[in-house]
Amino acid sequence: MTLFSDPAVGIADPYLRRAFALAERGRGTTSPNPLVGCVVVRDGEIVGEGFHERAGGPHAEVVALDEAGERARGGDLYVTLEPCNHFGRTPPCVDRLLADGVSSVTIGMRDPDTNVSGGGAEALEAAGVQVRFAEDPRPFEVQNEGWLTRIRLGRPFVRVKVALTLDGRPALAARRRSRITGAGGRRITMLLRSRTTAVCVGVSTVQIDDPELTVRDADEQPQGRSPQRIVLARTCVPDTRMKVVCDSGGSTLVISDAVPESALADVERAGVRVLRYAYAEGLAGALRAVATDGVNDVLVESGPSLFSALWRGRLIDELVLVTAGGMSGNAAPPLFLGQADAEGADLAPVFYAVETGLADGDAVTVWRPRV
Amino acid sequence: MTLFSDPAVGIADPYLRRAFALAERGRGTTSPNPLVGCVVVRDGEIVGEGFHERAGGPHAEVVALDEAGERARGGDLYVTLEPCNHFGRTPPCVDRLLADGVSSVTIGMRDPDTNVSGGGAEALEAAGVQVRFAEDPRPFEVQNEGWLTRIRLGRPFVRVKVALTLDGRPALAARRRSRITGAGGRRITMLLRSRTTAVCVGVSTVQIDDPELTVRDADEQPQGRSPQRIVLARTCVPDTRMKVVCDSGGSTLVISDAVPESALADVERAGVRVLRYAYAEGLAGALRAVATDGVNDVLVESGPSLFSALWRGRLIDELVLVTAGGMSGNAAPPLFLGQADAEGADLAPVFYAVETGLADGDAVTVWRPRV
Repeated sequence: MTLFSDPAVGIADPYLRRAFALAERGRGTTSPNPLVGCVVVRDGEIVGEGFHERAGGPHAEVVALDEAGERARGGDLYVTLEPCNHFGRTPPCVDRLLADGVSSVTIGMRDPDTNVSGGGAEALEAAGVQVRFAEDPRPFEVQNEGWLTRIRLGRPFVRVKVALTLDGRPALAARRRSRITGAGGRRITMLLRSRTTAVCVGVSTVQIDDPELTVRDADEQPQGRSPQRIVLARTCVPDTRMKVVCDSGGSTLVISDAVPESALADVERAGVRVLRYAYAEGLAGALRAVATDGVNDVLVESGPSLFSALWRGRLIDELVLVTAGGMSGNAAPPLFLGQADAEGADLAPVFYAVETGLADGDAVTVWRPRV
Repeated sequence: MTLFSDPAVGIADPYLRRAFALAERGRGTTSPNPLVGCVVVRDGEIVGEGFHERAGGPHAEVVALDEAGERARGGDLYVTLEPCNHFGRTPPCVDRLLADGVSSVTIGMRDPDTNVSGGGAEALEAAGVQVRFAEDPRPFEVQNEGWLTRIRLGRPFVRVKVALTLDGRPALAARRRSRITGAGGRRITMLLRSRTTAVCVGVSTVQIDDPELTVRDADEQPQGRSPQRIVLARTCVPDTRMKVVCDSGGSTLVISDAVPESALADVERAGVRVLRYAYAEGLAGALRAVATDGVNDVLVESGPSLFSALWRGRLIDELVLVTAGGMSGNAAPPLFLGQADAEGADLAPVFYAVETGLADGDAVTVWRPRV
């Protein structure tokens, strides 16, 4: 996912590029499934299009083949991810492709899932269908890095957004709500929320800021789908009067461990779902619990404590910094509590900048871990 | 001056755009004069080109007309700045334009200098030459913002470059040299130095980092022109063993006030020029002394003390932040010592982001004061 550039520019084939764009329509709603887009082409004309919208719903190939109908026979199918060859919640797509008689299948990326890998493409070839792969699978891997991260690491892809002053502080005073960025930063926050499966905060952010964590327009009106809300509450639960517990802005999940069961029962009674995990497993354990619940990717809007714990635990896959053009001074709380990334007297950067952009006077820089 | 975009894109006329590019060749060497570029066109063909290289040298118009020779007669002249109509170190350009018989003059921007303003264009028109102005003077004003700032405010245009960690710290430990940014940040520093008239540091940076402040290539070899070096030394002078005093990397100017005359005499004997100013005038007074010495623009590579003084004094015209992808932790020194830019509990930004870009894993954000 990119904020300031089109990730599809690297896709040479125009039908695969179209399939990629279709897949994007499922962003935020397909978990625990991947994003998938598909087009069916007959005589150079697109006769069917589809994308996967949510788990349990039809796969992208089925939607596209349904639209194509009889025109699929002898046609060419383009799909961002290798078609499945196993029974999940729905029957294998490979069977449907063969039944509908497509003559060629072009695939964006291989399915790394051990149930599937190699299976779909090989089964199609064995049945006489011509199978091709995209020259460069990377755009498709980037599109599904949430799903891939959950499969490979057993935790969601963790994107962290932080708003900072020019001198690198996330707030003007400790444990007090303060607005740092302006309209541009707000727009970036809403864009990130609209594209994520779940938005995740620490319980102290809930207690200090009482955020809604919903997607809203410039007039504060709800806009489209809001993500699942997740509160990381290691040792205490949010007050039941807080918006994430009692408002109508969407479902909330509390990930907790060591708090008294009676407090957990209170928030559960208020309509919030609670997931327990073992305290000893720490933040990594909390994120594993989120993944086990079927969440491919989270947007963490964190205060300094949660941010520092994620950084120290090497649990950040992408960091989005939104910087505003003012100074906080040295009395403001620091962003990071922990050891320097140092090599002798010098900084030894562990992240690198991948993208930058302007947002109405605020600056956005996007960072990824060096490998 | 921009780092990541072409400032000439807003210039509709192709000959004025060419004149703009020619003027850029004088960047860093024309002080106290402006950058000026000129082309002479005859029958749709460029027959003469010129730019102003240094004070005392020929003006851009003269260079272009010399090249055009007899072909200038009846031709069209394009110049980024209104031709002068007064005797300075050289005779008035207007006289030369009339003598060479150009039939039209197209001007990027008016000369705001009271000796000149209105004079050049009006004198040409009075002599029967057709005079036109660029639809939008802004690109030309931006090109000469150093010169314009010196004329309007009596101080140089102040561009400040700071290297920061992700958590906003300029160093890992106080009063100790530490490298923050990588090859990308270094490249940006060298680019900024190559484009500035003078590079300016506080005396404490000289004592801690012992920098050369020269333009060097990736192998540390000198590359092209290095800027004038300026040390702001309010209360003490640099040690005479420091590179800016004793190496061959270029001339150095020490701006000082309250230090003992004997110490100033020592650095003067070492080949450094000393400018005195009144201590009571503070940093603004030091910058006025720099402007009076004929410097249109400075690049300040500052530590936290000088940076904070410039910020508090509203003396920064452009801030270039180069950020590297690592944390320093809260034991590192802060960038800014002073009051927060706040409005109640919220940040009230006084700068806005104008440009961002990537530099080999480092991120560059460029900021300007809100007006």
